[in-house]
Amino acid sequence: MEKNDGVTIIVFSGEMDKVFAAFSIAIGAAAAGKETNMFFTFWGVKAIQKGNLTGQGFFGRMMGLLNRGGINRIGPSRFNFGGIGRWMFKYMMKSHKVTLLEELRKTAIDLGVKLLACEVSMQVMEIDADDLIDEVEKSCGVATMLEKAFHSQVTLFI
Amino acid sequence: MEKNDGVTIIVFSGEMDKVFAAFSIAIGAAAAGKETNMFFTFWGVKAIQKGNLTGQGFFGRMMGLLNRGGINRIGPSRFNFGGIGRWMFKYMMKSHKVTLLEELRKTAIDLGVKLLACEVSMQVMEIDADDLIDEVEKSCGVATMLEKAFHSQVTLFI
Amino acid sequence: MEKNDGVTIIVFSGEMDKVFAAFSIAIGAAAAGKETNMFFTFWGVKAIQKGNLTGQGFFGRMMGLLNRGGINRIGPSRFNFGGIGRWMFKYMMKSHKVTLLEELRKTAIDLGVKLLACEVSMQVMEIDADDLIDEVEKSCGVATMLEKAFHSQVTLFI
Repeated sequence: MEKNDGVTIIVFSGEMDKVFAAFSIAIGAAAAGKETNMFFTFWGVKAIQKGNLTGQGFFGRMMGLLNRGGINRIGPSRFNFGGIGRWMFKYMMKSHKVTLLEELRKTAIDLGVKLLACEVSMQVMEIDADDLIDEVEKSCGVATMLEKAFHSQVTLFI
Repeated sequence: MEKNDGVTIIVFSGEMDKVFAAFSIAIGAAAAGKETNMFFTFWGVKAIQKGNLTGQGFFGRMMGLLNRGGINRIGPSRFNFGGIGRWMFKYMMKSHKVTLLEELRKTAIDLGVKLLACEVSMQVMEIDADDLIDEVEKSCGVATMLEKAFHSQVTLFI
Repeated sequence: MEKNDGVTIIVFSGEMDKVFAAFSIAIGAAAAGKETNMFFTFWGVKAIQKGNLTGQGFFGRMMGLLNRGGINRIGPSRFNFGGIGRWMFKYMMKSHKVTLLEELRKTAIDLGVKLLACEVSMQVMEIDADDLIDEVEKSCGVATMLEKAFHSQVTLFI
């Protein structure tokens, strides 16, 4: 990996619109031939979950309930009153033929975007490695992310 | 445009305080003689709207109602209970003689900051090109933004 | 300071989880031997407050009430219903032996991370220099921050 090339995206947020933006930028970068890494941490980990209930401990169960369903159940950062926000966002996307989140993620993977999962976040949120989609590289930490970032021209915190 | 110079700011958020921060940083960079680009996407598009009601479709109307009034009606990301947050923020700004959002935007434009509007966001939110202020470059995509970013020393996602 | 080295983090958000992420990244960068600067602005200023009530004016008192208690009273960006979010976050952190926010900040300082306070934010929020912890460099502006950023390989807006 050459110095000063590529894109590193830290996906901290779990809201649909921000995850959507993250994947859009990643796809754009990969399509332009740049090495692209996405580091999923905190709420962002939801975006690489398989979709089943997560965690067995108290907090994990609580998170699991809130996050149940994985990427398709992610709501936007605004207007998410009882799911209406998510519904509106999907409706709006569909009626304008914009690609949905799951397809975006697939496109990113197909274009060679690397998905990295933050290990500490997984532990704290009681998310098992098996709960993540297969394409994700597990057991990554801040050091791994920073190493990518120091070889990237563009690093974003989303 | 030289490599590794300039600043690119992706304005994703539509909240007053974040838009305020974005313009402040852009002005600082432009004042230091750096090429500065702001790419307005998702909720950030509000910050370059003229102020009239946007969109005729279902979602556009809904967004229009919520966003009616353009940059002067943008509220901060916190404490926005029934407009009180916006009022407090303006009061606080005024009583400390801090420049308001619209003046900030004007200053940025005067200093040569380039404003780019994300085309997909405009389509999805049913915002017409005519709804945006004249100084905005329309029909930009992620590819345009990334091209700017790859020639910038600093790229931020706000 | 060499060109294209180091990390600059703009801490705009005041939520516990985002401040946590900011310090984690700063610590990782400093541990890797990189010059690391954190610029605290807007709500982020809370993270470097001593913990006492801030400001005497109307808005300062209002902010003070909301922010009372400094870094230990910061709540996460989600699920902060009446403090339950903060409690859950701490419980979760503790039960998984993850370092708490105040210790994180101390570690960052010990590793040589420089903390800069945004002067305009302090004025607007009516926060006195004495209200900030001693390790903070006061009287910084966007220009100072940008100077650091232009010599950094990685600049993040959190």
